[in-house]
Amino acid sequence: MCVVGLGLIGGSVMRAAKAAGREVFGYNRSVQGVEAARFDGFDATADLDEALSRAAASTALIVLAVPVPALPSMLRHVRGTAPQCPLTDVTSVKGAVLRDVADAGLLERYVGGHPMAGTAHSGWPAGDAGLFVDAPWVISVDDHVDPGVWTEVMTLALDCRAVVVPARSDEHDTAAATISHLPHLLAEALAATAGEVPLAFALAAGSFRDGTRVAGTAPDLVRAMCEANSAQLVPVLDDTLRLLGDARDKLAAGQPVSGLVEAGHAARIRYDSFSRTQIIGTVIGAPGWRDELAAAGRAGGVVRSALPNLDSRG
Amino acid sequence: MCVVGLGLIGGSVMRAAKAAGREVFGYNRSVQGVEAARFDGFDATADLDEALSRAAASTALIVLAVPVPALPSMLRHVRGTAPQCPLTDVTSVKGAVLRDVADAGLLERYVGGHPMAGTAHSGWPAGDAGLFVDAPWVISVDDHVDPGVWTEVMTLALDCRAVVVPARSDEHDTAAATISHLPHLLAEALAATAGEVPLAFALAAGSFRDGTRVAGTAPDLVRAMCEANSAQLVPVLDDTLRLLGDARDKLAAGQPVSGLVEAGHAARIRYDSFSRTQIIGTVIGAPGWRDELAAAGRAGGVVRSALPNLDSRG
Repeated sequence: MCVVGLGLIGGSVMRAAKAAGREVFGYNRSVQGVEAARFDGFDATADLDEALSRAAASTALIVLAVPVPALPSMLRHVRGTAPQCPLTDVTSVKGAVLRDVADAGLLERYVGGHPMAGTAHSGWPAGDAGLFVDAPWVISVDDHVDPGVWTEVMTLALDCRAVVVPARSDEHDTAAATISHLPHLLAEALAATAGEVPLAFALAAGSFRDGTRVAGTAPDLVRAMCEANSAQLVPVLDDTLRLLGDARDKLAAGQPVSGLVEAGHAARIRYDSFSRTQIIGTVIGAPGWRDELAAAGRAGGVVRSALPNLDSRG
Repeated sequence: MCVVGLGLIGGSVMRAAKAAGREVFGYNRSVQGVEAARFDGFDATADLDEALSRAAASTALIVLAVPVPALPSMLRHVRGTAPQCPLTDVTSVKGAVLRDVADAGLLERYVGGHPMAGTAHSGWPAGDAGLFVDAPWVISVDDHVDPGVWTEVMTLALDCRAVVVPARSDEHDTAAATISHLPHLLAEALAATAGEVPLAFALAAGSFRDGTRVAGTAPDLVRAMCEANSAQLVPVLDDTLRLLGDARDKLAAGQPVSGLVEAGHAARIRYDSFSRTQIIGTVIGAPGWRDELAAAGRAGGVVRSALPNLDSRG
């Protein structure tokens, strides 16, 4: 397999795949990254054509681990040199990547992925073979996905010791907006509001500390994730604004805010008791397998050991 | 001193005061609470007139630790039986209590207080002599407060091993709205929004968990604190809604959300480096002492050991 981009996530995929016994080589744009990877005993090059030609020769799985803005140009190279290779990515917003891949004419061999792990650091030195252990690794089950490629990407995620959450790209992006991008915006707004109130920091305790923790994230990272997923973030932000605006009007009118408070409490209690079940029995490639996996993922199901593929059982 | 109401907070004040060597007796409406306190060796009665007459006889400090809705009727009893006693309270919204006290004609001997400590439990059995150790105990420095009563309340808070934060009642209520009531509403709205999004709980991790933690609080408690402080909560909620609404419009227009994200990050960093300084040198009763203490509290100052009183130095 071929990892394109050897930063935190790509570098961790390379380490984890090699630790699982796979043959893996990679490309990185900066020579420093390549040298650091080689020093650690990995097979890396700063020559993109060389890496992609090698992938093409063995129809290796290509893992795109470059920043989202770099994807369109990278996809053109893949289209030119290795169009038959199975293709996945490890970036966070699946809908935008799906459009880039379609624009490059590579949809047929592409299955999107999003390992939900990370640290505050970046670059090859920050990578870790254990980064994905027990982490959810979302693998897309959009209508176009090929059973063979899906199996290859599932196997990679399981080799990295992640748990696979099957999901449609649009549902993934809305969920990510809700559970990651929205909390970041709320934390920023709470911190910014308190910053203008004399005595607020002097009295602040647990609820403020928890509610603003992720406002400590580097502003560039928060902007990048929110702005890249704005199409999915705006509707859920609107839902939240509606709930808060309604509570505001009730408070101003001296009415109870039971509606919001009881809905919020009930949802949090459901979340606390949410448990992951193991997906078994689905045969990849069998009729309706994509919808079956999407429904299972929605219900909290994860793949912990490889599902059978219709072809290999045939 | 006389503690009126022996629930979590009142019962803890009684225990902490006795542990500090003070003479303390108390009243509780329910006979069960009185019996539990007596069983633990405390001087308690279910006869309000008896307790208040005893307080009047020795001009004892009266600490009101009953729920806010019970205050007006309790204040009428105090007015009738023990109007000369110095008076404080340990409830959370200071402006409303101040109005009740003024209505009862007891303003002259009243200094409001708010020990910022608590647990999820209630009643005498939940009390703890150590509940206030190192916790901020806000003591009001409104224009009317009497230096002698202020000194008595400060001494009680220090005996309970709290740190005293001097603050005006209106500033306290706005700060409490910002750092406690607002985070609760945001957490409820985030949880309720996610509750409607398929796949949200399946992908949720740290930022969602932190951002919704206080949505686990009992709905009645959240409603009570938000609704009792609605006059202060609505303006800070409006500030937050304005910040979020502006970010929403920028995201929808494909513009950067740098304004909110950078303001939030900067505020959180300031909060992380906020440190408490000790207030020394202020003489209670000296010209401008109330403004001096209010300014010091705003800047993060706390009283850790008793400040001198002009009278006692005369």
